Amino acid sequence: MARYEIFVTYKKGIFDPPGATAQRALVNLGYDEVADVKIGKYVRLEVADGTSEERVREMCDKLLANPVIEDYRVEKAEG
Amino acid sequence: MARYEIFVTYKKGIFDPPGATAQRALVNLGYDEVADVKIGKYVRLEVADGTSEERVREMCDKLLANPVIEDYRVEKAEG
Repeated sequence: MARYEIFVTYKKGIFDPPGATAQRALVNLGYDEVADVKIGKYVRLEVADGTSEERVREMCDKLLANPVIEDYRVEKAEG
Repeated sequence: MARYEIFVTYKKGIFDPPGATAQRALVNLGYDEVADVKIGKYVRLEVADGTSEERVREMCDKLLANPVIEDYRVEKAEG
């Protein structure tokens, strides 16, 4: 089995309401040092050996991310 | 500004419905090589310089993750 990690984030300029809410909540809890919070998705894929990164990117474009408003980064995980 | 990345995942044994749904959907789309999908949260924090990792872990325990059902990993981001 091969493993891939995918990090999905909003594109620049797209408002991230959960992140903004978390930022305010942290400041209210006394964590004034928090300037910005962005919340995205962290996907772990377990695929058959030999599955290419290109194929994983295809899955992202079709299902795991919304390419209209989101960016993603794919990394092959070790071990 | 310092940046931290936080990866929140369900603990072992906790069912992950969005991941299970994504796995089935990928197989239905023809990606038979997908054995497992887990979907967690990817948080990017921007904090004042000098904020310790311990302090960030405190924020995770209090707000960003649910320690009862979730694990998290904190990494200091470069740049």
